[in-house]
Amino acid sequence: MSEALAHLVGQSVADIDTPALVVDLDAMQRNLTRMAEFARKHNVRWRPHAKMHKSAALARLQIQAGAVGVCVQKTAEAQAMVDGGVHDVYISNEVIAPKKLARVAELAHRLDAQRGRMAIAVDSIEGINRLAQAMSDANARHGADARIDVFVEIDVGQGRCGVQPGPQALELAQAVAGHSALHFAGLQAYHGKAQHLRSPRERRDAIAVATDDVRFTRKLIEEQGIAVDLVTGAGTGAMVCEAASGMYGELQAGSFMFMDADYAANERDPAQPVFEHALFIKTQVISQSADHAVCDAGHKSHAIDSGMPRVLTQEAGNELDYFNGGDEHGILRPSVSGGRIPTIGRMMWLIPGHCDPTVNLHDFMIGVTGGLREGVVERIIRVDARGALT
Amino acid sequence: MSEALAHLVGQSVADIDTPALVVDLDAMQRNLTRMAEFARKHNVRWRPHAKMHKSAALARLQIQAGAVGVCVQKTAEAQAMVDGGVHDVYISNEVIAPKKLARVAELAHRLDAQRGRMAIAVDSIEGINRLAQAMSDANARHGADARIDVFVEIDVGQGRCGVQPGPQALELAQAVAGHSALHFAGLQAYHGKAQHLRSPRERRDAIAVATDDVRFTRKLIEEQGIAVDLVTGAGTGAMVCEAASGMYGELQAGSFMFMDADYAANERDPAQPVFEHALFIKTQVISQSADHAVCDAGHKSHAIDSGMPRVLTQEAGNELDYFNGGDEHGILRPSVSGGRIPTIGRMMWLIPGHCDPTVNLHDFMIGVTGGLREGVVERIIRVDARGALT
Repeated sequence: MSEALAHLVGQSVADIDTPALVVDLDAMQRNLTRMAEFARKHNVRWRPHAKMHKSAALARLQIQAGAVGVCVQKTAEAQAMVDGGVHDVYISNEVIAPKKLARVAELAHRLDAQRGRMAIAVDSIEGINRLAQAMSDANARHGADARIDVFVEIDVGQGRCGVQPGPQALELAQAVAGHSALHFAGLQAYHGKAQHLRSPRERRDAIAVATDDVRFTRKLIEEQGIAVDLVTGAGTGAMVCEAASGMYGELQAGSFMFMDADYAANERDPAQPVFEHALFIKTQVISQSADHAVCDAGHKSHAIDSGMPRVLTQEAGNELDYFNGGDEHGILRPSVSGGRIPTIGRMMWLIPGHCDPTVNLHDFMIGVTGGLREGVVERIIRVDARGALT
Repeated sequence: MSEALAHLVGQSVADIDTPALVVDLDAMQRNLTRMAEFARKHNVRWRPHAKMHKSAALARLQIQAGAVGVCVQKTAEAQAMVDGGVHDVYISNEVIAPKKLARVAELAHRLDAQRGRMAIAVDSIEGINRLAQAMSDANARHGADARIDVFVEIDVGQGRCGVQPGPQALELAQAVAGHSALHFAGLQAYHGKAQHLRSPRERRDAIAVATDDVRFTRKLIEEQGIAVDLVTGAGTGAMVCEAASGMYGELQAGSFMFMDADYAANERDPAQPVFEHALFIKTQVISQSADHAVCDAGHKSHAIDSGMPRVLTQEAGNELDYFNGGDEHGILRPSVSGGRIPTIGRMMWLIPGHCDPTVNLHDFMIGVTGGLREGVVERIIRVDARGALT
């Protein structure tokens, strides 16, 4: 049904049916420009995580703005990006299934032929051996020697994937270096939890520890004669810390481009560019009672893993709070008693709690210019990697 | 990318790539048979909510088993069901946007021509007037008089849509009766919260209050000479109460067919059929550390609004707990200290917390027979109404 959105181009924002995922293209472009400036100023590479927008068109826009390529988490996402014309893709995650690794190796060949670059993370000897086997099989199949960049992931505080900093990482780096089709490219050191610590001081403290972990591990590996060309990590929340660390050479921040309610709840570090909300859910009121209204956007329209969406205030002094009404409904109540309850048919705008999984719920994003009130639809952006699970 | 799943038919469960949404067709069929028996025994109609499975093929299967038709929440879902050959569709929700109501009226005409039936809920005069206008416009367009069944929604404890039981509902029933293209069909009285109360006593108490609300409202309307042909509501959790109420004539329970971890956490009413888990996420371990493993299914694979998925125990005495690892990862820890941590590449099965929004994350469900351990893929079930937001 979403294929029918093309007719919206050129139409008013008022014509967008609800619920819909809408991108404020002007705000998005300002965020992009600020990020590019930030990376240039700090002399760090910038490789945004495409798991945020899942769109090859937006990935190409980021690369035009100065990004070196994109990160993804899944093989199917990498496929969507390469199919969409992105030539430098890094799966910043572990891939274990031989079928998936065969796809990764094929992508490595395809990008190699395009003078592009495929990279992947590992955190186990098993994973390295399986990857090497897949690359070796693909090289034999193609009669050509392609290589894949491999980052060893260390756990710098996230408590998820990655080996402990130190000797285990050295062991993996040595194993990678022992395979001719694998190129040890450096360390993956993403501290996801630090991104969402609310105060700048907490984020600095967390990234200071992560940086020590990186420094120690890097030294250990380099002492064994293996170059650690790059340390990659960082997200929108703490990136000013990684950028200033002198240890991270590449920032993976992606959410800055859309900014969600959760990242906006961080107290901004003065060193951090100002990023604006650029991703919204347009919704409308379908029911009204004495103490609340119900809108047509529930958690089938926006992810709630990082909290409920915020309601964009449209009338000064009449703020509304959003409460969970299930997958198909949102419940809106005035923030202060006596506030006005929006009437049936009233259009509203929500700021999603978490952009990545929100985008994943939609086939298309509707890009508007000229603002949410008076704007027009400029383009429909396909979510190429929606549902790219494998 | 998911179109490629057809090749799986006839293959072993072991060949399913991860993460994937898998339906145990044998368990599903047993659930279906038990529900059909239950409805027959209680002499109530049974109209499962298709927002659960979002599949026209499964809706047709339910109708074959004895369901009178299906419920949906959205116009786009109704469209997917009608397009998929379902002839009796009830939008058990308020629709307000004129564009959507025009689609609803078109569906009413289409089903009318097929001797089918379209129905919808209302909870405001504004909504009734807009619906009547859309039906009148469609009738003029078609040069034929189609009618739509209209249920007045009353709030029996859910605190979401619906007017208060009593005079407001009467006013709406009278308004519906005043429009020639609308047929007042009865009351929508769904108590969603009651479905998830954990003890049978709490559920009985909640539905007893709801039943009193229905009885009072029904009497008020019938005293004004308007027949209340049907009261529709109920879900998987409390349906034994609605079925025994003597007031509800139709059960909307849908989740029974797949059963999720949340409904399984209810203490079963002795009167309730035993429903088995039939919906699973197949996942595999991609990382292992000293105290946890990481699997490749995060909340992009399964909804977490009703809690984390449960891990299906595969080794007696070695239970695992699932912790949130973000949209792409799940963190698995032994339930008791000293338990074994699953190794890299190990396949696991998760029972999702909430089936409806979990299904919405997938383009296809993989239907297997013969169990999750030794089974084979029998069919690929398309999620026709995935992302059907409008």
